Amino acid sequence: MSLALEQRGDQRVEPALVRFELLHVDATTGARRGRLSTPHGTIETPIFMPVGTAGSVKAVAPDDLRALEAQIILGNTYHLMLRPGEELIGALGGLHRFISWERPLLTDSGGFQVYSLAEKRKITEEGATFQSHLDGAKHLLSPERSIEIQETLGADIIMAFDECPPSMSERGYLEPSLARTTRWLSRCVSAWSRSRSSLFGIVQGGLHEDLRKRHAEEICAVDLPGYALGGFAVGEAPAQMHAGVAFTAPLLPKDKPRYLMGVGTPLDLVTCVGSGVDMFDCVMPTRNARNGFLFTSQGKLVIKHARYAKDERPLDPVCSCYTCKNFSRAYLRHLFIAGELVAMRLNTLHNLQFYLSLMRDARAAIEQDRYADFMKAFAARSATVADAEH
Amino acid sequence: MSLALEQRGDQRVEPALVRFELLHVDATTGARRGRLSTPHGTIETPIFMPVGTAGSVKAVAPDDLRALEAQIILGNTYHLMLRPGEELIGALGGLHRFISWERPLLTDSGGFQVYSLAEKRKITEEGATFQSHLDGAKHLLSPERSIEIQETLGADIIMAFDECPPSMSERGYLEPSLARTTRWLSRCVSAWSRSRSSLFGIVQGGLHEDLRKRHAEEICAVDLPGYALGGFAVGEAPAQMHAGVAFTAPLLPKDKPRYLMGVGTPLDLVTCVGSGVDMFDCVMPTRNARNGFLFTSQGKLVIKHARYAKDERPLDPVCSCYTCKNFSRAYLRHLFIAGELVAMRLNTLHNLQFYLSLMRDARAAIEQDRYADFMKAFAARSATVADAEH
Repeated sequence: MSLALEQRGDQRVEPALVRFELLHVDATTGARRGRLSTPHGTIETPIFMPVGTAGSVKAVAPDDLRALEAQIILGNTYHLMLRPGEELIGALGGLHRFISWERPLLTDSGGFQVYSLAEKRKITEEGATFQSHLDGAKHLLSPERSIEIQETLGADIIMAFDECPPSMSERGYLEPSLARTTRWLSRCVSAWSRSRSSLFGIVQGGLHEDLRKRHAEEICAVDLPGYALGGFAVGEAPAQMHAGVAFTAPLLPKDKPRYLMGVGTPLDLVTCVGSGVDMFDCVMPTRNARNGFLFTSQGKLVIKHARYAKDERPLDPVCSCYTCKNFSRAYLRHLFIAGELVAMRLNTLHNLQFYLSLMRDARAAIEQDRYADFMKAFAARSATVADAEH
Repeated sequence: MSLALEQRGDQRVEPALVRFELLHVDATTGARRGRLSTPHGTIETPIFMPVGTAGSVKAVAPDDLRALEAQIILGNTYHLMLRPGEELIGALGGLHRFISWERPLLTDSGGFQVYSLAEKRKITEEGATFQSHLDGAKHLLSPERSIEIQETLGADIIMAFDECPPSMSERGYLEPSLARTTRWLSRCVSAWSRSRSSLFGIVQGGLHEDLRKRHAEEICAVDLPGYALGGFAVGEAPAQMHAGVAFTAPLLPKDKPRYLMGVGTPLDLVTCVGSGVDMFDCVMPTRNARNGFLFTSQGKLVIKHARYAKDERPLDPVCSCYTCKNFSRAYLRHLFIAGELVAMRLNTLHNLQFYLSLMRDARAAIEQDRYADFMKAFAARSATVADAEH
């Protein structure tokens, strides 16, 4: 598979797995400053990864993402396998080339969307059968098939096919599920070519510390380029999630990147960086932007509100994004209310800038051993402004 | 009004009307190469003006328009007076500042949309009463009110309030309408402050040469910074429109810019430049883009068609827009079919580039006295490729 891809693709990349360098650990927290080298460039961690579901980070283009200094973006295997199909993307040189993004890419396994989006899903030892939410067509996603699809897409980082149970699942449901996810990881590893896409394993276990610990041991017994925390932010309270991550992250190898999947709010990111997480992804900044919910240094801002009708200020006076440098809240409100398409782009640019800039600030704080203060100040400010619009 | 505006606005512009310089007339056609100086910069003519209906050229932002080298864009008085309202825009420093566009702007009078969009409209000598298509609120648009609104918005070029009758109108309907439009022009001129927005008169007359001639004489008897041809491309066949423009354009003063309102297809532009038109506006490139209808040097391209599913080529190999430089037809088809927002931007960038580049080529052809050949070659190519998708 990978040999065929490399013969076929014009955009050759050196076959190499990712390498993680732990540059510094904050003096008083678990926060880590790292560097992840990939075939498509280097990622400074901790990092937030914008989600490009169906081959596009919604409402923005690669030029926007470069201007925002996004270091890596995600693609969703579930969406891409259904439309336009991984074979088409592979035939056109892989996902990087298809979407014109020459920096690092990560794809998920497809499993999460099978559980959350697909219809008539059924999980067996073999894998998951489901019907497409687009046209009802039947599909099977298994460890082997997920790896095959992901290697055809050709992302720098690919994810093991796991089951992601609801976080409040009972022990009786979780235990066989975790054992199966461990067996599925072995099958992923057997299917994996090791040629240019680095496989990350995923630790599940809900909110049970003993299960998280046991599963972390099982997953980390397999030597992989990185490890992820799955099954968080799937229904539990933020404090429960923070505690679960704080317990589990330190169980993962220190010399490998740690990725917390699908998380979260700005406060979630700041908190979990403090527990030693290196990578995050979430649709929150992009989805909220399209709904007119904007993140600012002074708290949330709901752009449709009448209070902004004549407001000449930028969304956030300390923000350096294109939107804040050029447009008033009054104009952005007008665009949103008038249903102008450009509102989606301008809002998305701003929210992504907020997330990416937050991670830049976090990296600087770690380097200077002041992450505890950074985290405390951010949490205090979040508590103050959480419900106050400005 | 204008004094108040200038006292209030931070973004002061020199009070100056536009000046037109006729640089060259093509040796064998009526095509003119000109330069229009405005308070916000110089426009090289002939030029196409992208339409920014409600304060946004749909799906693109000012950075995109600058990258496309758009020289001037339009705003629609009807849309802006209804939402967010001209008073708000005026209070925030005018339309240039509100939409963050520091280059030239033109607003129409609002009349055309009253006839095409509004409900329960009634035309009297005083003006037009109508109900907003947004909320049913009653409004009056008169010559005085239109000028007041347009001067509050502060565009570099503003348009006289006229009636735009259907092009196939009978003489019996047209004659009193034309006389009223002439009387309305006098009222527009009386209301006009001459401070920073240059008023253009509009010649109507349907497809009747004698009426066009008489009305051109009436309108051009008023010394104004520019003149427009109205009432074309409102239902008649292209050949009728081309003939009407070819007859009427030469009746307008040689030393003033000539603006053909609401036109048209690429072939319309090329043809009417040959008749001596200097300025065009039309929603066609932007609206078609959003519907996936793309203009290329080899003819039209309907991006959703299955033939493009695996097509690695750019939309147009000779196009230098961001879209063509970075993305395949296969990817653009995928984005369009998946309903990705960025498809709207990428398609719009391309179609605008096609129109703006066509006018650049036209200007070069005029300068080199080869406009007849340019026009002939374009018409021949259009005839060949009109129905052939590639």
